[in-house]
Amino acid sequence: MELGILTLGDLQRDPRTGRQHRAVDRTAEALGYAELADQLGLDVFAVGEHHSPEFTTSSPAVLLAAAARTSRIRLTSAVTLLGVLDPVRVYEDFATLDLISRGRAEITAGRSAFVEPFALFGHDTADYDQLFAEKLDLLLQVRDNERVTWSGRYRPALSDAPVIPRAVQEPLPIWVGVGGTVSSAERAGRLGLPMTLGYIGGTLQHLRPLVDAYRAAGARAGHPERLQLGLSTHLYVGANPAAARAVYPYFHEYLRPKTPGGRGFTVTPAAFEAAPVRTAQLWSAAPRNSPPNCSTPSGPSDSTACTGRSTGADYPNAWSRSPLPGSPRMSPRPSARGDLTWARQRPEAASCTRRDGLSNPTRAFFEPSRVLYLDGAH
Amino acid sequence: MELGILTLGDLQRDPRTGRQHRAVDRTAEALGYAELADQLGLDVFAVGEHHSPEFTTSSPAVLLAAAARTSRIRLTSAVTLLGVLDPVRVYEDFATLDLISRGRAEITAGRSAFVEPFALFGHDTADYDQLFAEKLDLLLQVRDNERVTWSGRYRPALSDAPVIPRAVQEPLPIWVGVGGTVSSAERAGRLGLPMTLGYIGGTLQHLRPLVDAYRAAGARAGHPERLQLGLSTHLYVGANPAAARAVYPYFHEYLRPKTPGGRGFTVTPAAFEAAPVRTAQLWSAAPRNSPPNCSTPSGPSDSTACTGRSTGADYPNAWSRSPLPGSPRMSPRPSARGDLTWARQRPEAASCTRRDGLSNPTRAFFEPSRVLYLDGAH
Repeated sequence: MELGILTLGDLQRDPRTGRQHRAVDRTAEALGYAELADQLGLDVFAVGEHHSPEFTTSSPAVLLAAAARTSRIRLTSAVTLLGVLDPVRVYEDFATLDLISRGRAEITAGRSAFVEPFALFGHDTADYDQLFAEKLDLLLQVRDNERVTWSGRYRPALSDAPVIPRAVQEPLPIWVGVGGTVSSAERAGRLGLPMTLGYIGGTLQHLRPLVDAYRAAGARAGHPERLQLGLSTHLYVGANPAAARAVYPYFHEYLRPKTPGGRGFTVTPAAFEAAPVRTAQLWSAAPRNSPPNCSTPSGPSDSTACTGRSTGADYPNAWSRSPLPGSPRMSPRPSARGDLTWARQRPEAASCTRRDGLSNPTRAFFEPSRVLYLDGAH
Repeated sequence: MELGILTLGDLQRDPRTGRQHRAVDRTAEALGYAELADQLGLDVFAVGEHHSPEFTTSSPAVLLAAAARTSRIRLTSAVTLLGVLDPVRVYEDFATLDLISRGRAEITAGRSAFVEPFALFGHDTADYDQLFAEKLDLLLQVRDNERVTWSGRYRPALSDAPVIPRAVQEPLPIWVGVGGTVSSAERAGRLGLPMTLGYIGGTLQHLRPLVDAYRAAGARAGHPERLQLGLSTHLYVGANPAAARAVYPYFHEYLRPKTPGGRGFTVTPAAFEAAPVRTAQLWSAAPRNSPPNCSTPSGPSDSTACTGRSTGADYPNAWSRSPLPGSPRMSPRPSARGDLTWARQRPEAASCTRRDGLSNPTRAFFEPSRVLYLDGAH
């Protein structure tokens, strides 16, 4: 299994200081996360795509290309809003990223959890699912063929068209990002595509019907061996429970609906405090020999969404009190994978995985150290 | 004035060895050029956009984001094929690049010298100029306003739409790339936008009508002070005339029409040899203390298009016999600007500039060391 880190580039007002985060700082932070994750031996760096002022990353491929200064970590979107984009351009962008990174690029394609992109790119939300289905079909054809002849409803036809450059990887990995829709999970299984589930709160049991539908569809299509499962969730890593608890004001601000009736969740202090808290950190990591300027996160602004993918036995089952450092200013000395001290409560991780029926995930994002029960029916 | 280097990422078969260049190598070379140009003190790194198998760069913003690992060089497309793209997405990509590079991004928008992009993105070449005019208007509106209300013929309307992220620079520089069309130069002048002329061969006198039209339109519009002029041309830098001459087979292959009736120029050996050759190099540069692995270009494959922009008095007027190194494998030690030895025949440069009436260019790309008279009416 693999561990990764994900940033959506959220642009919030710091609830303590009232200071609005700047996009240029968040961008530098994101690149700092990528470099640090690479040095720490994490497996994947992921960047979200949004088109509203609460976020700073609308072009994952461009930001990921800057993150290709890393040496081995894989680089993926999470998610590319394929329904509103041109699959030809998406392939061009990520094939270029694949050339730059010498075969480390991936696409995670999703439908979008927000409506803004549909207005921005002139699409009707009534076509939400058909848009995605058609464009996923085209993206796969572009990926799998050097020249493409294709026609559809939502994009001009192609006649023996070359799409360049060609990716290094054959094929360029395309995952499907799924929220809570069973038919989306079935489609991913039917197509034999790897699937990542987005998971904001609650228990992993909420995800079981999606996983079951995915596996059943893959089996019906005759390619159960092609299925791969990923989970994505929020995780705040702190040196101790109090440090983890300090994320609350920022987390509340981050998740709350920003417009009347807008998408989001209101996490009340009572709900936050009443939530079952896993007192053990699930995992955290720090270079064994942290340089003097390798400080702990500076506070709630480091609550960037973290997702866990673990390769299991690769890491020593040791404990560390150090949080996952998050400052882009730090410059840890290059560390070989074996130099890392990893802390992970593996029986706990394994049991929560088993308990929820998500056996053998390829890219399971583990349950966060602190499970937040959120208001709202997610 | 400024000096820059430009790559179109051409993917040719080496005419000597018959070996086809690989996209992954050309991509690494392009990033090597950017890093070297940054270390040598050049001012701009430019990446072209093409959508046919003879080239490897279809997504300049993605490649430029990888080149943002440099420290001070400016990063621009040359050109962004604005007529076939979505200006909203173009702004998003380059604003992201601007955040990554902390204010070093630029867009050079052009109409396209090729027809392939129109078929690929479902546009009619009959709309060639209207497409560009409309999309340039939208791009400027997106650049200059945080929220945009707009409607046009070729792109869905926008209603009070935010486009994020916002660039660091206010405004994000937008140049117009012009080939040989006087009305395009007039439009750039009328809009008060900086203009770069693409210039494949012949003398600079061919460009005079374009420059005159640009300046006249800018004066009529009442903003002559906003005009800036750039020139872009091929330049092969060699240690001596014989080394420069060795580029011929590659240059011939690069410029020849690849399909019957296709766009291109046939440069015959006779025309190449009969061309007036400037026996003095116009400029070349090398780190004063080249590391052992800083070798000279390995042959014709280093004929990447070079464009010259000079800041004049910043550099010592010294001579060097070293060519501009082009190999991405080299890793010159970081050099401060003052450590560079620059060689430039400044009176020659100044006189050729004056002679052709291109006085006071802001970003004059100098005449190449070897002027090629090409067959074909460019």
